[in-house]
Amino acid sequence: MQTDKLAFVKSMLPFWNKLTGEEAALLTKHLKTATFASGENVHSSIDDCVGILLVKSGELRAYILSDEGKEVTLFRLGGDAVCVLSASCLISSITFDLFIDAVRPTEVCLIDTRAFSRVMERNVYAENFALRVTTERFSEVMWAMEQILFMSFDRRLAIFLLDETAKTGIDNITMTHEQIARYVGSAREVVSRMLKYFAEEGMVAVHRGGVEILDKLKLRKLI
Amino acid sequence: MQTDKLAFVKSMLPFWNKLTGEEAALLTKHLKTATFASGENVHSSIDDCVGILLVKSGELRAYILSDEGKEVTLFRLGGDAVCVLSASCLISSITFDLFIDAVRPTEVCLIDTRAFSRVMERNVYAENFALRVTTERFSEVMWAMEQILFMSFDRRLAIFLLDETAKTGIDNITMTHEQIARYVGSAREVVSRMLKYFAEEGMVAVHRGGVEILDKLKLRKLI
Repeated sequence: MQTDKLAFVKSMLPFWNKLTGEEAALLTKHLKTATFASGENVHSSIDDCVGILLVKSGELRAYILSDEGKEVTLFRLGGDAVCVLSASCLISSITFDLFIDAVRPTEVCLIDTRAFSRVMERNVYAENFALRVTTERFSEVMWAMEQILFMSFDRRLAIFLLDETAKTGIDNITMTHEQIARYVGSAREVVSRMLKYFAEEGMVAVHRGGVEILDKLKLRKLI
Repeated sequence: MQTDKLAFVKSMLPFWNKLTGEEAALLTKHLKTATFASGENVHSSIDDCVGILLVKSGELRAYILSDEGKEVTLFRLGGDAVCVLSASCLISSITFDLFIDAVRPTEVCLIDTRAFSRVMERNVYAENFALRVTTERFSEVMWAMEQILFMSFDRRLAIFLLDETAKTGIDNITMTHEQIARYVGSAREVVSRMLKYFAEEGMVAVHRGGVEILDKLKLRKLI
């Protein structure tokens, strides 16, 4: 089991073979497995700095949160994803607060921030990896930002609904309007209004606790 | 003059002393100075990849552009700033289109993308620098995003006007409503309406081609 965990971590960290024996031992020593229940908060704000997350299974959602409690989803992380922003205190140039929740039951390997930080100070390849992963997230955030700022809301919602059914293979999306609003970076009222319009047009059926997709072709035409 | 240029570049690139003689020679050979007029486009989209920009004087503005021509300003770069996103083809994980214009007459040193790319492949410190600078921009973009998504518009506009007068030291902001709208990521109509309200409240005076700040204290109270 311990060996399995280490093998997983090595497979996720391409710089592992550039580590000295001492550095590898330090990371190995400060490695743990953690599981999060659906909806559980994994990381909140740069102050707590939970550590480097290596997602084994499940799904995480990263978002920003306004003073008034408005959430905007920036990206999601599935199996085999690495998240460095959950250890954002590692990189001094990261100055924004990010929140991460588990979308479904999720298992992760967690590398302690301080241990990783000590390795990063000595090993430029470890630092390089952390910066490169961060840059990848930058592109994902830019994509989310363009969706939110530039795309008309009917298109955004149609894309979200079609993506969800494509991902699960089921035409029934069991999410509240509130939850959908968080994913698409909007307000519940706006989502409810647009879903009502979609329902009137025969594209979806809205029922308690979910949305059923009825006419994918018509939804696709919105995109 | 040539020596001055090189001294400037060395002062801006902290990894210079980690370069081999050959690598330093390669960068030095592919270095040039360029000037841009006020409003001139410096970089557009990831395809052209103008190169690494080292700003000597003046000011650049980086923004994204929607299909419908809507602009959202992400960050500005003043003297002694480095921009790697203008050579975004360097970093494969950067997949978004960024546009950069000169806000005022601007002088830059430009390092050829291909030359920098060759150095980056061999020298992990050069790659590290490019990634670190990119991560800094990530934080700036997140800040801009939070302003746009979370802040009420009167606050955003008040902050923009006060920042502008603080920067120039002049109470008169010579910008059209259209230009202000681009900077704050809004529409001209929204800016005009809010400025009209600010004017009615005695905080500003709106005149042809500009806005004059009349009551900074009252504007500051909005923030």
